Amino acid sequence: MRWRRRRPISDPLIDKGTVWLVGAGPGDPDLLTRKAEKLIAAASIIFYDALVDARVLAFARRGTRLVPVGKRSGRHSKDQRDINALLVEAALGGERVVRLKGGDPSIFGRAAEEIAALRAHGVTVQICPGVTAASAAAASLGATLTLRGHARKLVLLTAHARAGDTLDLDWQALADPDATLAIYMGKAAATQIARQLIAAGLPPATPVALVENASLPTERQFRTTLGLLGIAARTALGDGPAMLLIGAALTPANPVRTPHAIAESPGAD
Amino acid sequence: MRWRRRRPISDPLIDKGTVWLVGAGPGDPDLLTRKAEKLIAAASIIFYDALVDARVLAFARRGTRLVPVGKRSGRHSKDQRDINALLVEAALGGERVVRLKGGDPSIFGRAAEEIAALRAHGVTVQICPGVTAASAAAASLGATLTLRGHARKLVLLTAHARAGDTLDLDWQALADPDATLAIYMGKAAATQIARQLIAAGLPPATPVALVENASLPTERQFRTTLGLLGIAARTALGDGPAMLLIGAALTPANPVRTPHAIAESPGAD
Repeated sequence: MRWRRRRPISDPLIDKGTVWLVGAGPGDPDLLTRKAEKLIAAASIIFYDALVDARVLAFARRGTRLVPVGKRSGRHSKDQRDINALLVEAALGGERVVRLKGGDPSIFGRAAEEIAALRAHGVTVQICPGVTAASAAAASLGATLTLRGHARKLVLLTAHARAGDTLDLDWQALADPDATLAIYMGKAAATQIARQLIAAGLPPATPVALVENASLPTERQFRTTLGLLGIAARTALGDGPAMLLIGAALTPANPVRTPHAIAESPGAD
Repeated sequence: MRWRRRRPISDPLIDKGTVWLVGAGPGDPDLLTRKAEKLIAAASIIFYDALVDARVLAFARRGTRLVPVGKRSGRHSKDQRDINALLVEAALGGERVVRLKGGDPSIFGRAAEEIAALRAHGVTVQICPGVTAASAAAASLGATLTLRGHARKLVLLTAHARAGDTLDLDWQALADPDATLAIYMGKAAATQIARQLIAAGLPPATPVALVENASLPTERQFRTTLGLLGIAARTALGDGPAMLLIGAALTPANPVRTPHAIAESPGAD
């Protein structure tokens, strides 16, 4: 371990009664930060979301209690209150608490509600950032989310909607040809998103990439256009979490990929 | 090492002639991903930006060539062409190349230009995502960048400007009370940013946080309001890279922090 200990071994990294909100990254355990790995190993109890990979939880020490608290779509607000109560109880009981969230805890993680509940009980909260799903999806695609002069702005938003729900978003502001949109939880609303963005002026030919289960062995990628996004989302994706990336930055810059060209060139062996 | 090797030891992780664009994260070497650490250790040559911490480069093997290619503000476009040429030359020469960039390579990293140049020469490029500075700044503040119902959208943008430059941004779209703005490289333009956002309708009382050198030992934080942002940026910050975070999510939710309250409570020791 290269971590410089400033504390005795008996009191490592996490103070008793402190809660660390830890970003578990997009899924691949190798996309966990070094700090997150160490915090997971230092916890006496870990509350984790449904999307956290079992291989990430495997970094916990033997004896650490692992408590699943996430569920997929359809959560009621009561559930969040239950989670808050569990975290407060563990902290006040003197545990070294890790609250493990997919991606980065500060982005669409509902962490603010947990932080407020913990602070209201005098509990110290600290945050370990993580790789957010938009970054992981772009990396898998070999694409960037910003382009000098063309996509100078990156807009992250959620579009979680149940069938029949209408999304209350400012489509006019979102239909910006100089921006990249990274839409979390947008699969169910993909048809509506495409229709609204086109109605607000974004060309149907705008490039779109969909990445499901970014960074996991089950990852699937699909490139399409805004005009075909609805049908693509309905037919090309499974039931894993998906990222929709929309904008000029997603233009396949160079479709000719030659993975092994170098192996035949004189300079390589 | 828990990395599952699918290749013989003599050919680890990086194929000869391949370039990995690797996110070095915000600065703290513990905020590097596990994957980035392994790629750095597997490289035969590393081209790194000025903002990459020496402690991150320390993960390189003995014998790996470390080539600084970054500079701070004031880069000419020729410099980027030089970097592209160096990367292409190393890849075609059969090196295992890591191009190490601060933060996440897909966000404001100018990676698209390097990817295009490399692919034009038939070089395989892969990306390892990293923790972007906005996530690290929020984590240091103990804040979230999104809030259910209040900050449902996170807008990342750069506002790099030299003294006297006018920023060409759509201020009307940016002045959205339901969004959080995370502005990279916005220190020099802070006064202009505040004036334009207020002119476009954002209240002067909108909460702002400034974080310089996020995650590093030299980190400085400052909370203010949009109306006072200009003077805060001129007086409170040094010459490190700074993140400006603007929006309701930056309201100090609970100013009473009691870091050691638990130590005195009956349940803890």
